[in-house]
Amino acid sequence: MQLSPDWVVGFTDGEGCFFVGIQRHPEMTAGYQVLPEFTIVQHERDIQILYALKRFFRCGVVRQNHGDRYAYRVRKLSCLRKVIEFFEKHPLKTKKNVDFRKFRRVVMLMEQGKHLDKGGLLEIVEIAKDMNTANRPALEKVVEFLKAG
Amino acid sequence: MQLSPDWVVGFTDGEGCFFVGIQRHPEMTAGYQVLPEFTIVQHERDIQILYALKRFFRCGVVRQNHGDRYAYRVRKLSCLRKVIEFFEKHPLKTKKNVDFRKFRRVVMLMEQGKHLDKGGLLEIVEIAKDMNTANRPALEKVVEFLKAG
Repeated sequence: MQLSPDWVVGFTDGEGCFFVGIQRHPEMTAGYQVLPEFTIVQHERDIQILYALKRFFRCGVVRQNHGDRYAYRVRKLSCLRKVIEFFEKHPLKTKKNVDFRKFRRVVMLMEQGKHLDKGGLLEIVEIAKDMNTANRPALEKVVEFLKAG
Repeated sequence: MQLSPDWVVGFTDGEGCFFVGIQRHPEMTAGYQVLPEFTIVQHERDIQILYALKRFFRCGVVRQNHGDRYAYRVRKLSCLRKVIEFFEKHPLKTKKNVDFRKFRRVVMLMEQGKHLDKGGLLEIVEIAKDMNTANRPALEKVVEFLKAG
């Protein structure tokens, strides 16, 4: 199956998710790990679409998500860079583009190593908190923890 | 906002719904009304996408759905014909295409007036029952009713 750039943009406007996970990780200097990911989840009947996306971006993995759901997932920074460059060239048309820009900012800060110190991490958490996909109460606690520490 | 055909296909693969409603309607000869509809539902933040779809197909309406959700909806047979011709020319890539073909079959039968007699209606209900979007238990009851009558 061949996917066109416009189809990929339309499908991502519908089904794509730009998410920034922030996980407790005591071994890291700032105490937290930043895990940005781009995912598209489908019922297993459409698993071939997920593999087509993997071929399209030449990056990412297809994994079982929950039950009969599968996910195409990109986590590696070098792969996220490719995904970001694609959506810079072919912008999303829905308000998901707002989340995309915040996501891109987080990835850029990580590429600069800013997530490794507390100041940069705080900046990232504030951006993540402001995303549509955010778990705000959990991120509020991270902010409190970082400001208290 | 300008939409391209491929974007519309990708977005519909993600968010579109081909649905065949069958409603009790005692005034109709066969006792039921067939209501095929093509819908795309979005959060109100993306209402401009729904209006762009309406302009793209030159058909359909944008209406509030539930709460903060809005729907682009096509119900008129002449408009569904336009939508069908578009997706014949630009096929969906997900398994939603299977539902689309069943939906198209129902619309064709209606264009031929087959929904107005019991035999045609039964055929339509059997197709609708087999769709991914179907409320199977309700449609089973319609079949029982038609076969008993």
